[in-house]
Amino acid sequence: MAFKKITAADITYFKAIEGITGVFTDSETLDICAGDETEDLHYLPEVVIQPETVAAISKIMAYCNNEHIPVTPRGAGTGLSGGALPVFGGVVLDMKRFNKVLNLDKRNLQVTVEPGMITQELQDYVKEAGLFYPPDPASKGSCFIGGNVSENSGGPRAVKYGVVKDYVLNLEMVLPSGEVIWTGANVLKNATGYNLTQLIVGSEGTLGIITKIVLRLIPAVKHDMLMLVPFRKAVEACEAVNAIFMAGFTPSAMEFMERDALEWSMKYTHATGVALPDDIEAHLLIEVDGNDMDVLYKDMEAIAGIVQQFDIDEVLFADTHEQKQMLWTLRRKVGEAVKSNSIYKEEDTVVPRAELPELLSIIKRLGKEYGFQSVCYGHAGDGNLHVNIVKGDMSDDDWNNKLTEGIRKLFTEVVRLGGTISGEHGIGLVQKGYMDIAFNNTQLKLMKAIKRIFDPAGILNPGKIFAD
Amino acid sequence: MAFKKITAADITYFKAIEGITGVFTDSETLDICAGDETEDLHYLPEVVIQPETVAAISKIMAYCNNEHIPVTPRGAGTGLSGGALPVFGGVVLDMKRFNKVLNLDKRNLQVTVEPGMITQELQDYVKEAGLFYPPDPASKGSCFIGGNVSENSGGPRAVKYGVVKDYVLNLEMVLPSGEVIWTGANVLKNATGYNLTQLIVGSEGTLGIITKIVLRLIPAVKHDMLMLVPFRKAVEACEAVNAIFMAGFTPSAMEFMERDALEWSMKYTHATGVALPDDIEAHLLIEVDGNDMDVLYKDMEAIAGIVQQFDIDEVLFADTHEQKQMLWTLRRKVGEAVKSNSIYKEEDTVVPRAELPELLSIIKRLGKEYGFQSVCYGHAGDGNLHVNIVKGDMSDDDWNNKLTEGIRKLFTEVVRLGGTISGEHGIGLVQKGYMDIAFNNTQLKLMKAIKRIFDPAGILNPGKIFAD
Repeated sequence: MAFKKITAADITYFKAIEGITGVFTDSETLDICAGDETEDLHYLPEVVIQPETVAAISKIMAYCNNEHIPVTPRGAGTGLSGGALPVFGGVVLDMKRFNKVLNLDKRNLQVTVEPGMITQELQDYVKEAGLFYPPDPASKGSCFIGGNVSENSGGPRAVKYGVVKDYVLNLEMVLPSGEVIWTGANVLKNATGYNLTQLIVGSEGTLGIITKIVLRLIPAVKHDMLMLVPFRKAVEACEAVNAIFMAGFTPSAMEFMERDALEWSMKYTHATGVALPDDIEAHLLIEVDGNDMDVLYKDMEAIAGIVQQFDIDEVLFADTHEQKQMLWTLRRKVGEAVKSNSIYKEEDTVVPRAELPELLSIIKRLGKEYGFQSVCYGHAGDGNLHVNIVKGDMSDDDWNNKLTEGIRKLFTEVVRLGGTISGEHGIGLVQKGYMDIAFNNTQLKLMKAIKRIFDPAGILNPGKIFAD
Repeated sequence: MAFKKITAADITYFKAIEGITGVFTDSETLDICAGDETEDLHYLPEVVIQPETVAAISKIMAYCNNEHIPVTPRGAGTGLSGGALPVFGGVVLDMKRFNKVLNLDKRNLQVTVEPGMITQELQDYVKEAGLFYPPDPASKGSCFIGGNVSENSGGPRAVKYGVVKDYVLNLEMVLPSGEVIWTGANVLKNATGYNLTQLIVGSEGTLGIITKIVLRLIPAVKHDMLMLVPFRKAVEACEAVNAIFMAGFTPSAMEFMERDALEWSMKYTHATGVALPDDIEAHLLIEVDGNDMDVLYKDMEAIAGIVQQFDIDEVLFADTHEQKQMLWTLRRKVGEAVKSNSIYKEEDTVVPRAELPELLSIIKRLGKEYGFQSVCYGHAGDGNLHVNIVKGDMSDDDWNNKLTEGIRKLFTEVVRLGGTISGEHGIGLVQKGYMDIAFNNTQLKLMKAIKRIFDPAGILNPGKIFAD
């Protein structure tokens, strides 16, 4: 793709637009916006623009569309597939000034929020009003809600409460043409035209710039209980997940952690208070929640009874708020812990839940075949397993070539099991080379044609999702 | 649009395709497929084809695409917006042979079903395995699951369990080109490319022919309780809906019925056992469900306490299975009862839930202004109010002209309240003239461009959703 390089005249134009906090070309700002949390990738933008009004974004988009300048929207930069990386340079649209709740509609259990608000802050905000926004990606303390919408994020509680797409009612977005549209209506049921809202959720910033998000909320849940179950065999931990569902329970979280994942996270967070006997291969972190403590106790007891049927060590029931926090921190920090330990690639595999034991066996078999070490953890209740492949002492050649073949093989098996190549991280830059495993030419042709409808000049977040 | 008329050669071609039960040109079959449950509309197809394999549909589509013959897919013909009417003649694709469950995957709580299965039969089938498929349109005893997917249907239980779109994981569909694709994967979380699945759900058979549907299921719910609450003021019934949610309860159904709706349904079904004192304007039918009877009793008592704050008569608690059945039958038969009473038009308004009292006042005010009588009922918990406008002694001129203006005014108010013009019936034929109220030109342009991607020749269910 041939894009126009940014000139002094472009910068002058951007600086003259009203409703912009800053137009940055200093190397420090460009450098920050050159990377995200995906591996160690680095792509410098030519300019970083921080708009603070929808009208300003509209002007920027219309201008860049005419001038053929690439625009890459950026949230908090916590993405794991490189979606916010400006791979063709151009403009990074830094959305951090869009950080306000515009309307908390308590009567309708809805909130209208700007995309640059931190997810955790949004959750806390609605909690004050007795309401609950469930999706909680591991990075919720720093990621933006707009990024969550763009990647259709999940998190531990998706197993009971669903993912981001299940909460988005309506979106305001700026098209590359500069036109501003709403995608739907603020209603729980809608059979009026094509579902543009769900087309935008998970579209990774390639179809428009999201400027307002209407989310449905649910009444706050009063209580939760948490337990950590150590399994002597990792595959049995996956099987236990299924047994719990088959018995009719829907926990609010069912997180799987391989031994290495937990051990590395314990070291990384200097955690104490969790025993890790030598013969334990994996853990399940199981949470139940609800408004009636009696029911929760009964559920917890029944689930404890189910896991007893497997080869487990002693179950740890979190008694205090602090203990719960500690266990959740251990789980949430696994990603960072692995990253701090080695260069790595993270694959975001997802399969129908009951296929998890087979997926885990396949990963370990492929590891032997292709010579890679993997640390697996993730949202077992959804069949969503994060496979962290650590470089360790792999040669650069094997890392760059042989491993790619191994990952292709892994994704091929995932698709064979009825799954797909990303559950919640998105395709972005780093997985686009594998899209042909998930989709054939007819499917890809349809998706690319949709992209062209919204972005005929191809200026919006170019180089993402599609290999060509 | 200029389509080719069907010739004897076309019929010969269709008859030679393998995997077709019948190619019908007899007047009786054509007549059946000329109408659905929408008003008294009648559009004759030129031929009705009953395929029984995906390969056969693929051949039919490719042929009609080349020959420029319109194809209209037809489910059970229970639609309320004329989506199955062959307004340009051509082929009606009768899907009733696609009536099998292909795979009940108990381990993954999923079912793969063909589109021509009756929704109630699917619900009963999965119930046998201890599983639950919640969406239950009023016509569930006769409508097809494929029609439900095409219209993104809801039903009473949507308020707690969501609508059809919340259960569809993956779809197999035949494109007008004859190509067969899957839209996604059989997983609970998916961040892989654009969400084609949700684009197809609710697209009213205008983008492809759905041939397989993968639905997620949930564990069966053990108990439910039902009560009927008579309100002296209809607006207070709407207000009570909100009060129940604000108190933190999520009933499994909250159905609103105006006095006339219930009265006409009682006459139509010859029901006894429900008192209808003269001063009652409306009823709420409230259901709670769950696995713990103690919790249900507590919830029911609390909800009864909340409705007592309004001006109500004696609450009827359904004690027996028969009584529950009777109350649900009364609710489900309202539509038929109104239809049997007069020529009518049904509007499928939906607003944010708390705006229901205002919507109801607006409807009655517009009725006076434009001289129409309306019978309102529907899914108050979702803000989805069906407005049945009865012709009564209105002149034909007023019915055809003045009323259209009144409906435009009504929909304009609905959109102003944050709502939209169809909650679960779809736009189809009869609402397409109002699409400009819900969407501006930019939005409509995007939707029409999407239609052209899937159906460049415009042969698939032409004349639906869009006014031009």
